[in-house]
Amino acid sequence: MNVPSSPLGVVRRHIVRADPAAVARLSRLGVSTLHEALGRSGLMQPFMRPVYAGAKLCGTAVTILLQPGDNWMMHVAAEQLQPGDVAVAACTTDNADGFFGDLLATSFQARGARGLVIDGGVRDVDTLQAMGFPVFSKAIHARGTIKATLGSVNVPVVCAGALVQPGDVVIADTDGVVVVPAAQAHEVADAAEAREALEAGKRARFAAGVLGLDLYKMREGLEKAGLRYLD
Amino acid sequence: MNVPSSPLGVVRRHIVRADPAAVARLSRLGVSTLHEALGRSGLMQPFMRPVYAGAKLCGTAVTILLQPGDNWMMHVAAEQLQPGDVAVAACTTDNADGFFGDLLATSFQARGARGLVIDGGVRDVDTLQAMGFPVFSKAIHARGTIKATLGSVNVPVVCAGALVQPGDVVIADTDGVVVVPAAQAHEVADAAEAREALEAGKRARFAAGVLGLDLYKMREGLEKAGLRYLD
Amino acid sequence: MNVPSSPLGVVRRHIVRADPAAVARLSRLGVSTLHEALGRSGLMQPFMRPVYAGAKLCGTAVTILLQPGDNWMMHVAAEQLQPGDVAVAACTTDNADGFFGDLLATSFQARGARGLVIDGGVRDVDTLQAMGFPVFSKAIHARGTIKATLGSVNVPVVCAGALVQPGDVVIADTDGVVVVPAAQAHEVADAAEAREALEAGKRARFAAGVLGLDLYKMREGLEKAGLRYLD
Amino acid sequence: MNVPSSPLGVVRRHIVRADPAAVARLSRLGVSTLHEALGRSGLMQPFMRPVYAGAKLCGTAVTILLQPGDNWMMHVAAEQLQPGDVAVAACTTDNADGFFGDLLATSFQARGARGLVIDGGVRDVDTLQAMGFPVFSKAIHARGTIKATLGSVNVPVVCAGALVQPGDVVIADTDGVVVVPAAQAHEVADAAEAREALEAGKRARFAAGVLGLDLYKMREGLEKAGLRYLD
Amino acid sequence: MNVPSSPLGVVRRHIVRADPAAVARLSRLGVSTLHEALGRSGLMQPFMRPVYAGAKLCGTAVTILLQPGDNWMMHVAAEQLQPGDVAVAACTTDNADGFFGDLLATSFQARGARGLVIDGGVRDVDTLQAMGFPVFSKAIHARGTIKATLGSVNVPVVCAGALVQPGDVVIADTDGVVVVPAAQAHEVADAAEAREALEAGKRARFAAGVLGLDLYKMREGLEKAGLRYLD
Amino acid sequence: MNVPSSPLGVVRRHIVRADPAAVARLSRLGVSTLHEALGRSGLMQPFMRPVYAGAKLCGTAVTILLQPGDNWMMHVAAEQLQPGDVAVAACTTDNADGFFGDLLATSFQARGARGLVIDGGVRDVDTLQAMGFPVFSKAIHARGTIKATLGSVNVPVVCAGALVQPGDVVIADTDGVVVVPAAQAHEVADAAEAREALEAGKRARFAAGVLGLDLYKMREGLEKAGLRYLD
Repeated sequence: MNVPSSPLGVVRRHIVRADPAAVARLSRLGVSTLHEALGRSGLMQPFMRPVYAGAKLCGTAVTILLQPGDNWMMHVAAEQLQPGDVAVAACTTDNADGFFGDLLATSFQARGARGLVIDGGVRDVDTLQAMGFPVFSKAIHARGTIKATLGSVNVPVVCAGALVQPGDVVIADTDGVVVVPAAQAHEVADAAEAREALEAGKRARFAAGVLGLDLYKMREGLEKAGLRYLD
Repeated sequence: MNVPSSPLGVVRRHIVRADPAAVARLSRLGVSTLHEALGRSGLMQPFMRPVYAGAKLCGTAVTILLQPGDNWMMHVAAEQLQPGDVAVAACTTDNADGFFGDLLATSFQARGARGLVIDGGVRDVDTLQAMGFPVFSKAIHARGTIKATLGSVNVPVVCAGALVQPGDVVIADTDGVVVVPAAQAHEVADAAEAREALEAGKRARFAAGVLGLDLYKMREGLEKAGLRYLD
Repeated sequence: MNVPSSPLGVVRRHIVRADPAAVARLSRLGVSTLHEALGRSGLMQPFMRPVYAGAKLCGTAVTILLQPGDNWMMHVAAEQLQPGDVAVAACTTDNADGFFGDLLATSFQARGARGLVIDGGVRDVDTLQAMGFPVFSKAIHARGTIKATLGSVNVPVVCAGALVQPGDVVIADTDGVVVVPAAQAHEVADAAEAREALEAGKRARFAAGVLGLDLYKMREGLEKAGLRYLD
Repeated sequence: MNVPSSPLGVVRRHIVRADPAAVARLSRLGVSTLHEALGRSGLMQPFMRPVYAGAKLCGTAVTILLQPGDNWMMHVAAEQLQPGDVAVAACTTDNADGFFGDLLATSFQARGARGLVIDGGVRDVDTLQAMGFPVFSKAIHARGTIKATLGSVNVPVVCAGALVQPGDVVIADTDGVVVVPAAQAHEVADAAEAREALEAGKRARFAAGVLGLDLYKMREGLEKAGLRYLD
Repeated sequence: MNVPSSPLGVVRRHIVRADPAAVARLSRLGVSTLHEALGRSGLMQPFMRPVYAGAKLCGTAVTILLQPGDNWMMHVAAEQLQPGDVAVAACTTDNADGFFGDLLATSFQARGARGLVIDGGVRDVDTLQAMGFPVFSKAIHARGTIKATLGSVNVPVVCAGALVQPGDVVIADTDGVVVVPAAQAHEVADAAEAREALEAGKRARFAAGVLGLDLYKMREGLEKAGLRYLD
Repeated sequence: MNVPSSPLGVVRRHIVRADPAAVARLSRLGVSTLHEALGRSGLMQPFMRPVYAGAKLCGTAVTILLQPGDNWMMHVAAEQLQPGDVAVAACTTDNADGFFGDLLATSFQARGARGLVIDGGVRDVDTLQAMGFPVFSKAIHARGTIKATLGSVNVPVVCAGALVQPGDVVIADTDGVVVVPAAQAHEVADAAEAREALEAGKRARFAAGVLGLDLYKMREGLEKAGLRYLD
């Protein structure tokens, strides 16, 4: 969806990308952990799935606002992609056509892009997998698109329910897709790394048979809430 | 959905509401016309429907970010409502429980609110209709909610795919729900009124039997695009 | 869906219906209130909707387990219907065909049935409305069904996510459909009536402008949970 | 959806419409009855609903194949509409945008069209109702469309799962939408009228308390199938 | 969904588990075969899918009734799990949040649990696969949950349309999830094993080119039903 | 769905299959390419997915029209299958039951069939994969079906939104399912092969860093359409 204050027919050439060092740190963290580190915000809806098993990506967002059944702006966006970017495509309406296939993937990969996140459909999925070009999408659909109507590139977009600003870090893995605002990238990486360290310790205790009831000291709270044990 | 930069557990007390004069102008215009006047942005997804036939609303948004199955923030929001406001409720995840019913409607109406737009469920629908309190929602659902977890009030939210800032104008009728940014309210009203005037003229010509092909001078364009007439 | 312990091809003739006095009490209460009085259980999923505006029903369940595209058991069930019953039909699989129309409605009405709740489709909806025969269903669908395969009558069924035992009280209104176990009918009516009385008092206070924050003494809890007010 | 043998970019000017006398007969019959008379074929999927309560239509199909987000062919179709026609619009892909509103309705009505059936979205619904222009659609959606890409007019289309040939009779009421091939129009009217007469007799017997078990002599068949009555 | 007679806030400590010998037999049989052996009952809805390819499980049910967005009862349930159990989690409403991840999986596995069936979402799916902890769910979703509201453990639940009693045998494979009542475990294993033996013989005949028409002697029945062969 | 002019209860024995040489050519081409070569027609809806990773098929259609929950016609169809055929099954209504499993697959494979395309459900998916019998379906569902009602074999059907005539070529791969009319098979293969050759050249240029903006000479068109570049 397009955001009220973002005009159609616009390409912003200069965007502020998140610090590459922060992106590198975020790329080693999982989506579920990052979503927690973000205070449980920034997550796309769960219908966004990898188009092949094992796909993963992390990079800075070049945003694309598409019109239904039209992928003209994909070509406009290609020119704005820099190494380390991830293309993030939203559509002005609900549409699952195949906006993207092997030729665009070849072009995006040649520009150094690390993948695509699209609230729409893609095709040539076997080739995408063979190329190692990760895509997270709402659908796989062979239906082609035209090149007739202007959308925008590098404007804020709502993609699968999440607001994405150009330059934000987008991370996707088997658990979903999450957006980290560029300005918060290091801070979120800090919080996520701390959480990971903490969880490693908890995992060892769970593996040793300690119950969450005891580890998290839940018994009193449950009793207060009125939990009754019956035989 | 919550927007990355909006923390949970926050209530903003002072928001900049759109000019009441602009709201009054927008209240006389239809959602489809306004969506056009906005350059086709700001529209919520079409699953948002009135809970009773003929419901309509227009007012300034007090935004609410709910947690699933929890309507605590509805009560927090009530205090922030002023005459002429519309409550706009999003949820941190997809949830259709009945977050709102006749008691909250009574409270909101007493505060001067003009209705509710909610990406979730509501209940006591017959009473809402009897009270004349318009609601647009994703679902009607008798299931009640608890009051246990903090969301936020008056932070930016993504509601049914549209970004809503506190103070924006929200207009809803049988055609759907649209959001007009507060700062653009007069400008959008201008464009929409101009469009309405223009359409009145066109309607008369269509009624007289003139074809769009001629009114919009489409015949040449169609021929150039390759349209073939067969007998 | 059918319940594991319920064989197909069975009709139970003698069932224990809820006390008619309790049914009469429950018929004056709304679905949302009853769902609360039940400790928030017994509610069907929200895709169950009245087939015409204003439909309402309350009665004792005669359950029907249908096969997909087959309404043979509707005729078997007709014979088991007594005045004050509501037919509650589930299907062994997900199916939205038109299992029920004006002829069956005429037959059920002649038997004294008060309506139908069906996790499937119905047809002849205009006639159902003209007859005043309320139906709550998942779909309206003109497609007819055959009479070839056995289901069951008066076995436990899962209808739209809720377990229904023959003789339970089923109540449906604009807010949805709820099931009250026969043995709890009076107790649930007691709780619901108490709740209604309580809500009348609250409604008056809300109408007078008292906030839920104060009425429910929520301010301290919100503060403890960490709610921050910003200007 | 478009049918393999139907090229895009084509308008067929001369189509063979069903006999007006047959259309008149069909207009007095219900969709459920006609679907039965057709041997249970020709029915559209049940997500096709009237956009206002009480809408009904019957007429000869002028078919329209739309591109997603594009209503150019609606204007091309307007010129092909004759009094007594119904516009039947399919799309080359799944799309719920608002392809049709009050201006096109005014134009279609001026041409003598009796309504619209569209596997897509429409807008200006309150005006459509005020005009008495019946529409059956998959969605109500304020989102506008462009005029950039060719589809076709008067080619065979698959609309909501049903194949429609130009000139076929399309009938829609609260129960759904059904397509009667032009060449079978009288024969189907015969069968449907016979069925109606038959049902009137049955209805009287059901109202008098006769069971379907006896009226249709089902008891023996049920017993043979193994139905067991338990006490 | 919760079952009307099951209170919230209850943990039943002693449940009657199906005989381990029967569970062992059932673990060697497929879901489709078992569903047939059960007289076609006990099957969950087909949206329940393995979270990784090749996942399979069989064990005795410890049931969990969750509140939306809340996984407190998962920790309560961990203590009730015994070697050979399968956790079966339903929710009081429709919710796809990530109720379960690698830490809980570590805890459940340490208790000897054989997997999880959940009418909700899970996360940390790559780790679940690496651990060999099979999960069947409605969704994969990174969104975390809170621990604030009581549900129940070891009460009857409706999970994805199927009624599950604590102690029942739950079997899941690529074809879906099925529930075998504890008391019928041996009897169902008998029927399923017999069916398997029978099918092996049929498979050989089909492989040799025998038609089902002849193997099942269908020709006469088809002719009686009126099947016509055209050239 | 069934097509209005196709009676139920009919088996056509002699159909005109596409030329095997053309089928061989089409089998080397991808679904997305063929859909383009067909002028973007003939594509099934994107919910049709392979039941195991890597499934692919190409062959001449033997069409099957099923009744819901009934696979009788699958056995009738088996006799009509010839080496090189693909079974294409539609249903008279929306139904996802498991119409097809390992026994029918063994029979179809013994007849020389190359796979199944079904707008419904299938089961025994692990065995289908082990057999190398490719299936594209709407669902995987363990629920079995009965054999009681007549459908048809080798009549035109609408399967997942696409019209299929007996003898047409059906091709399916990871991108979806497409139908090539028998009479156009060579012509479509010509167009698709030409397109493939053309794309190979483009791919090399994209890989070398040429932009689509330049390769397709889009810059002028974009400027004319009003695209603005901002810094």
